[in-house]
Order: sequence, then structure tokens, then C-alpha cells
Amino acid sequence: MEDYKIKVGITQGDINGIGYEVIIKTLVDQKINDFCIPIVYGSSKVAAYHRKALNIDNFNLNVINNASEANPRRSNIINCIDDEVKVELSKSTEEAGTAAFLALERATDDLEKGLIDVLVTAPINKKNIQSDKFKFPGHTEYLEVKFGNGKKGLMLMVNEVLRVAVVTGHVPLKDVYKHITEENIIDKLKSLNDALVTDFGLVKPRIAVLGLNPHAGDNGVLGSEEQDIIIPAIKKANSMGIMSFGPYPADGFFGAGSFKTFDAVLAMYHDQGLAPFKSIAMDSGVNFTAGLPVVRTSPAHGTAYDKAGIGKASEDSFRNALYLACDVFRSRLRHAEMCKNPLHKQDVEISGIVE
Amino acid sequence: MEDYKIKVGITQGDINGIGYEVIIKTLVDQKINDFCIPIVYGSSKVAAYHRKALNIDNFNLNVINNASEANPRRSNIINCIDDEVKVELSKSTEEAGTAAFLALERATDDLEKGLIDVLVTAPINKKNIQSDKFKFPGHTEYLEVKFGNGKKGLMLMVNEVLRVAVVTGHVPLKDVYKHITEENIIDKLKSLNDALVTDFGLVKPRIAVLGLNPHAGDNGVLGSEEQDIIIPAIKKANSMGIMSFGPYPADGFFGAGSFKTFDAVLAMYHDQGLAPFKSIAMDSGVNFTAGLPVVRTSPAHGTAYDKAGIGKASEDSFRNALYLACDVFRSRLRHAEMCKNPLHKQDVEISGIVE
Repeated sequence: MEDYKIKVGITQGDINGIGYEVIIKTLVDQKINDFCIPIVYGSSKVAAYHRKALNIDNFNLNVINNASEANPRRSNIINCIDDEVKVELSKSTEEAGTAAFLALERATDDLEKGLIDVLVTAPINKKNIQSDKFKFPGHTEYLEVKFGNGKKGLMLMVNEVLRVAVVTGHVPLKDVYKHITEENIIDKLKSLNDALVTDFGLVKPRIAVLGLNPHAGDNGVLGSEEQDIIIPAIKKANSMGIMSFGPYPADGFFGAGSFKTFDAVLAMYHDQGLAPFKSIAMDSGVNFTAGLPVVRTSPAHGTAYDKAGIGKASEDSFRNALYLACDVFRSRLRHAEMCKNPLHKQDVEISGIVE
Repeated sequence: MEDYKIKVGITQGDINGIGYEVIIKTLVDQKINDFCIPIVYGSSKVAAYHRKALNIDNFNLNVINNASEANPRRSNIINCIDDEVKVELSKSTEEAGTAAFLALERATDDLEKGLIDVLVTAPINKKNIQSDKFKFPGHTEYLEVKFGNGKKGLMLMVNEVLRVAVVTGHVPLKDVYKHITEENIIDKLKSLNDALVTDFGLVKPRIAVLGLNPHAGDNGVLGSEEQDIIIPAIKKANSMGIMSFGPYPADGFFGAGSFKTFDAVLAMYHDQGLAPFKSIAMDSGVNFTAGLPVVRTSPAHGTAYDKAGIGKASEDSFRNALYLACDVFRSRLRHAEMCKNPLHKQDVEISGIVE
């Protein structure tokens, strides 16, 4: 199984941002082709445009019509969009939105059919991609509907020292508190715990939970959700076998480096989790959609229009996203194999082979 | 003026936390006495208790009855509380709350009378300090009422590379959006700009403003406050001569290190500003209450009960708080002197003496 070359579907994202730049800079290193088969969903013409803008000569994508035709020793591309599409660097255009969606639709169809194993998505512009066919705040919600079978996915931010999930993701700040319920927190803790076990190979993960209010409510002085909702949720989760701790005040928790003693952190909302995560992870962070039957990762950055086409974007985050997608894919296979026979699993745990 | 030894009032904060540890570890270094006269407001008995717990032998505080008696070559202490007060390390007690308040009251009275020049506060427990005389979410609000003359203070987090202020501080998360008004944002921008000029000696500061919602609302998809309130506020501030930019999404802004190109950042709420700040500043951050006629700083950390009395607390933040208080005091004097005569001020600016 370790020799199997994983088929990695890569969506182009917004063609006017830094998507193609980070894709090309990642794929130009041919070591990638040793362990996976990259298949870009986009446009060979647009790819060539960006390649030229970046002055990269020694790189070509193998154009194919269907994922099953992918050359296992090359990086491949499937044309999903109109050849006449216009690149307008650093601009948000309707055309770019349509192009991003068409690539995403084709790639997820192929993922559904098993033609690719995992999906790595370059950043989209969440405004110009909106259409009759795409009415979602982002990739995560789109994938939930397509693959979740009624289940929600879990956006998990990952780097070498830190994994962060949020109870509420793309929710306007004033509505956040409405979604902070015992049920939602326990749901996320379950998904997070499952992901740490099946996707990261941890046996008994430790999860830190943050408070909702400043200073985690300071014992009720600055808000009551900690007492009324979060603490009961943590207690219940523990009684279900999920090792969860907190609630911790977000600022002190990250400031003191307390996250280093946990396997993951559950923040209550987007900026509370992601702003500290990105402050710490900077260029290296990856966004992983856990909790779905399919594996999808993406770089932690956005379209970064301000840097488009000038060669200044770092591909580290995108490369890590590709690596993580492959790691999770293998971890899931390993976990499924171990769980086939419970006695066998126990043997493995005792002998310490499990990471 | 540069030779003047600044009288620094230091409040003990919560006697069961790490307050005395960071105070003692800072004052034990006698270099401090070269440029300021520290006066601790607390209890010599409690100080001795902590000194012993920390195994520090070569340190004594000079006990005085009144700030005017302070020995300019020593670190001094004024007993403000009952001698029988009981230290219970790592515990929140009513006694500790009363003790913290009495020290704060005496120190701020002395600050009002001009017996001390600046105030550095060790952390309090915001729950046990509550009483008939102290009904505030924290130090900042107490000082506003005592010194603000109807004006609000501005909590400013400071380290070597980053200064962060927030529009809403100790407000429960669900109420934050109610306080995000054009008026409040402009008020904070004004205070922040004033502080950068008078307290940090900057001539024309550049201020970054964050959005309220995830992705700064993503052009209205994830919330409307950016379009309706924040952008108009920024425009108005600029027309008033305050160089402000944004709104930026908090996660990307901190993740990309964009703060390095600004003199300060205005975040919309507590965790949005403080969690990234502390992630970046870690042990070195300082909390400065700008916008009041008096100068007050404090370390960025809290009581840290979990570390009390075991010698593991870093005094860096407290030491920086003491340094910053002195820097701001001198900067204000310099600024006042410069502004006495506008023509003279212009001379100084042109000749480049202003930092």
C-alpha cells in the first residue's frame, strides 16, 4: 500500500490570484511525482500564462481528457473551462468565478467516481464564484453537501505544532453565539476526535477547548456561555471518552504556548482560531476538511490578488496541503486495516507500532 | 528632564498569583534603580512570603508610610493591607480580592495627588476583586472612571513589532456587534492616533483596521458591518487626517505579517486583537492604557494561578511594562515641550530630531 501512487486532484481556484503560482512552484519539483500523480483541474492555457508571467521554463503539464489517462510519471492537467477565458491578474471577475467553479465541479465529480483519491483546492474568491450552482460561503460547505450525506465537515487548520478546529466557521460575528450550543460543541469534538484518530493516527488524543467570551468569560463576569454551555459540553464529551479540557481564554492560551501540550484545539469561531493559528503557522498552514468520506486539503492563504503574477507567493502552504492530503489518505487506509480485526488492533497498540 | 528619576507606583495585584514573583524578579535587578524609583503598593509581609517561596535571598524592599518618603536608590513598599492577610497560592479568595483593591485604591490616590508619576499594575483576578467599591470588568474601566473625566481610555497592547488596540474590550462576544458603530471606531482611531503621536513620538502614524466578520465579511457574503460601518468610518478618519487603512481580515493580516508595515492595528474586539498579539508577542507583551491623563501599564499575562509560587513565571512582560511606562512618561513630557511653541516644533520636525 505504501508504494501505491496517490492520485491527487488539484483545482485551479481563482485564475487571477496566486493559485497557479503555488501549484506550478509545487509541481515543478519532480520529487512530487515519486509518491503521487498530480492532476490539475483547470486550463492548460491559463497555466501557461502564469508559467510565463513567473518566468519558469523547465515545466510542462501533460494535457489529458480524463483522469484515468493520467501519466503516473508526470503532472497532468484536464481542461475544464472555455479556452477563451481571460486572465486579469489581481482582479475579481465573473469569468474567473465561473472558471473556478467548473474546475471544482469536475474534480469533485471525479473524486466521487474514484478517479482521483484526494482533492487539493487552490483558493477561490468567495464572491465571484457565487452562482445558481454554487451558493455556499466556501469550499467546505460545498463539499459537505456533495459528500457529507447530511453530515457536516470539520475545517481543521494544521501545521507541525498546532491543529485548530472551529465550532462556527463562515458565520457573521453577530450570529456566532446562536450556534454555540452543547450539541454543536459535542458534534465538533466528536468529529475532531475521530479525525485525530483515523486521519492522524493518534490513539487517545487530548483536545483543548477555548471559551467564547474575552477571558473565557472570567467566571461569568464577561458572559455566561462558558458556564451554561461550554463546560457542560466538555463534561459530556469526557463521559463519552473524548479527552477534552478547558475552556481556556484564547489570548492567554496561545500566548503561553499551551497548545503544545494538546493534540488539537477547538476554538469557538473563525477569527478566534484562525488568526492565532496563522500568526503562529505563517506560511506553512494547511486547511483540511475532516469529517467527510473524502480527503480535501487547501493552503491556509487566500487568492492574494495583491501578489498575483509577480512571483512573490510562497508555495509552502500549498505543498504542505498536498503532502497532508496524501498522509491522511494513507492514515485512513492504515486505520481501516487495523480496525478490520479488533484483536489484531490491540496487538499493534501494545507493541507500539501505532504512532 | 532625562535625568529625572521617575516615580513608578506598582500595585501588587492578586497575592495568590504570580504578581509578586514578576515584581520581585524585575526589581531584584538594581539597574532599575538607576532610572526610576519603584514604589510597591501591597504588603511587605506578603512580599517576604513570595520571596522565600522563590528562594531569592539578596532582595529587600524599603518599607515606607508614604510615597513622598521613598528612597530614590531603593525599591520601596507601602503597606496598604491588613498584616494578617493570608496567602493561599493558586487560589481565588475574597481576601486576595480585597487586598488587590486596597493597593490599587491607594496607588491611584497617590497618582492623582502626583506622589507617583506612572502606574504599573500586577494582574488582578477580575472576579474576586468585585465589591461595592469596585464594580468594573478590569483595571482599564476603573481608571477611566477615576481619571477619564468622562473620556474612555484605550487598551493598547505593545511589543517591539506590534501595537494593537481594540474597539470593544471586556464585552461578551454576543454583544460586540452592538458596539461596532462609526462613532466608536472613529473615537478609537482618534485615541490611537493621539497615543502614537504623544506617547510614542511618531509624527504621522499609519493605522491598520481589521474587519468584524470572518474574511472581513468577504465583500458582504459573511456580514455587512464592513460595508455599512467600518469602511465609512475609515474614510471619515482619513478626511480628519488620521491615516487609516483596511478593513483587513484578521487571520490573513496577522498570518502574512502585514502588521509590520503599520504603526498600529485597530481590532474590532478582544480575542481578535489579543489572541494574535499574544501568539506573536508571547512573553514580552505589555498592556498600556492610552487616552488618559495618567500613564498606566501592566504585563499582558494574567494571575496565572497554575504557575504561582513555583518560580516558573517569566518577568519579561512585567519588566517591559515598567520600561514602557517610563518611556511614555518621557515621551509625553517631550511632546508637551515641543507643542509649547508651534514654530519651534516645526524646526524640530524638519531637522529630523523627532524619532
